[in-house]
Amino acid sequence: MPTPQLIAFDADDTLWPNQPHFDYAEAQLFTLLTHYADADTLGKRFYEVWRSNMHLFGYGAKSFMLTMIETVIELTNGTVTGTEIQQILDHGKRLLNFPIELLPHVEEVLEELRHRGVPLMLLTKGDLFDQESKLARSGLGDYFDHVEIVSEKNEATYRRILTRYGVQPQDFAMVGNSLKSDVLPVAKLGGVAIHVPYHATWIHEQVPADQLAGIPFHHAESLKEALAYLI
Amino acid sequence: MPTPQLIAFDADDTLWPNQPHFDYAEAQLFTLLTHYADADTLGKRFYEVWRSNMHLFGYGAKSFMLTMIETVIELTNGTVTGTEIQQILDHGKRLLNFPIELLPHVEEVLEELRHRGVPLMLLTKGDLFDQESKLARSGLGDYFDHVEIVSEKNEATYRRILTRYGVQPQDFAMVGNSLKSDVLPVAKLGGVAIHVPYHATWIHEQVPADQLAGIPFHHAESLKEALAYLI
Repeated sequence: MPTPQLIAFDADDTLWPNQPHFDYAEAQLFTLLTHYADADTLGKRFYEVWRSNMHLFGYGAKSFMLTMIETVIELTNGTVTGTEIQQILDHGKRLLNFPIELLPHVEEVLEELRHRGVPLMLLTKGDLFDQESKLARSGLGDYFDHVEIVSEKNEATYRRILTRYGVQPQDFAMVGNSLKSDVLPVAKLGGVAIHVPYHATWIHEQVPADQLAGIPFHHAESLKEALAYLI
Repeated sequence: MPTPQLIAFDADDTLWPNQPHFDYAEAQLFTLLTHYADADTLGKRFYEVWRSNMHLFGYGAKSFMLTMIETVIELTNGTVTGTEIQQILDHGKRLLNFPIELLPHVEEVLEELRHRGVPLMLLTKGDLFDQESKLARSGLGDYFDHVEIVSEKNEATYRRILTRYGVQPQDFAMVGNSLKSDVLPVAKLGGVAIHVPYHATWIHEQVPADQLAGIPFHHAESLKEALAYLI
């Protein structure tokens, strides 16, 4: 396989853990709010409220906070206290500035690719401000020739980015943990899609197996293993 | 003056009113919360809380909601009710989906520039998801060859964008209502900066007069008047 002309990496749960921080915040808040409802009820209603607000709030920690606040107000018929809501804000703020710990082999793999002169892109969806902050905190900024933060990663998004950079789909590779956002749309366009799964996958990013049938993509257990498909 | 090779327009309060919607939501909420504190106290504390959270929350309606909630919790020592906080969320949601009404001459000016074949860019700072939604609601999407949504509009931002599009500062023009974000950084880089003031300017975007001394920029009372500096 020829070396791609542009290699893009997803950020959250590909280069650094992100979902575990959200899962932890959620679990802590559900414990705190357990006198109002059990964790199952809270979790189910939280996801429903998130889905109904998704078109307004988008992804990320601010959306998480607002959704959690609205869920609790609803489940308590407005009797939740300001003090409890402040705890939601405090947990949410921690989601906006937790220290970024790189996943195994990240720097080694980026260093190897940079050494070979392949242009690298960070391509992540989410909240612009938050994602820029995470990249800055990661210390990885200098590895990337391009940074694209988008609101959705679907076929139209990838098509727009490839046009902008003048790259053909077959010369483009995408590495990420999300089948929905990193793998399927890229594979469908004819790009090289490499799935590096992460143990914690957000429910919204899960893909039913039948949607994967016949879609050509690579599977790697780690970024180091992914390297074999990139050079 | 030669026609610029790239003309960028700010969005909020340049192409459509935005600040008045925030001012209205703020006024409504201050009235609602008047049994806790008067509007002056609320307004002052709100801006302080916003400034201290700015590095985490950034700009936009979600930041507005979270800041308003935190302000009220603090001013009431946690006794604010969930029902009142829901009203903050309801006002905030309206800030995320109000109908976009174009300011005078917007379509006429964009049409004229498109007719002359000058590449046009929408260049706005704020929340990615929210700004994309406003552009979609405005119906202006097709006028713009490029859309850049950034977290700050300072000299470094403009330098990065000009490099990306291969345009020299002197061939670049920026039109906007904010002296801080649209005019000063562009003028300092040697670009053509055109200030089209808007009656409502957010306190954070205000610039002391001494910082403007000796900075060359154009002033236009309307987008139609700005056209004279662009073609």
